[in-house]
Amino acid sequence: MSDRPASPVHRAQADAMRWDGVDVLAYKRDGDAPYRDVTRQILFDDPSLACQLRYFEVAPGGHTTLERHEHAHAVMVALGRGECLVGDRVYAIAERDLVHIPPLTWHQFCAGADAPLGFLCMVNGVRDRPQLPSAEDLDTLSRDPAVARFIAR
Amino acid sequence: MSDRPASPVHRAQADAMRWDGVDVLAYKRDGDAPYRDVTRQILFDDPSLACQLRYFEVAPGGHTTLERHEHAHAVMVALGRGECLVGDRVYAIAERDLVHIPPLTWHQFCAGADAPLGFLCMVNGVRDRPQLPSAEDLDTLSRDPAVARFIAR
Repeated sequence: MSDRPASPVHRAQADAMRWDGVDVLAYKRDGDAPYRDVTRQILFDDPSLACQLRYFEVAPGGHTTLERHEHAHAVMVALGRGECLVGDRVYAIAERDLVHIPPLTWHQFCAGADAPLGFLCMVNGVRDRPQLPSAEDLDTLSRDPAVARFIAR
Repeated sequence: MSDRPASPVHRAQADAMRWDGVDVLAYKRDGDAPYRDVTRQILFDDPSLACQLRYFEVAPGGHTTLERHEHAHAVMVALGRGECLVGDRVYAIAERDLVHIPPLTWHQFCAGADAPLGFLCMVNGVRDRPQLPSAEDLDTLSRDPAVARFIAR
């Protein structure tokens, strides 16, 4: 990580949720996980900090991948509104709400039908790869009608 | 750290920049460092994450302590506006700006005269204690007129 250029001290917000020198990236590096209309920006990736801070933005009607992993997420909603699945519950979320994703917990974020959902996500710099649900996992999750509705959309 | 209670999954914003179950704390645990009108909230302090995410709010006219330390800070302004000193430069900052404080770099945040300054701060969970400037450090910093004006207020 030591060959990364030094981070500039100050990055003013250039446009809404865009910063000079922060690239707007594809959400996933590989194309095998289902998602829709999500961008990713890495706000801080500093070798002297043990976590990264990222900003994800889901367009209206879009969603992140349903996944789980050993690492945890600490999330603050920064724009818009939507819903998230964490474990076996669906939560309505709005700007400045906090969401904690514990280790090995299924989770997914969906924007509102008519609103984007932007959120900050703090995550360990060193982390495991996400796992996708099996058909059996999806069956188990879908026993709850609210979760079934959330997953099916 | 393992005796902390599990973090709840979802904390809705209760009032502006306040969350149920997140205490509003004194900025410093000890009273020997100068500051004015600052509160601190620990938004995420999870043993499975290597960093904490905190929210600091400086009332209009207030300021944090001028200090430095080995650990770095990753900051996003979340409310209001103000100025910050980082190293030997003063930056005007506003909502959603990003600020990176490198290791061993003097820094201080000031709210506007008529606006609060609220900011998120990501920091390693394990970190060294802040150092305060000596009279000689202050003399060196104050050679720049803009920095001298910033420190003197």
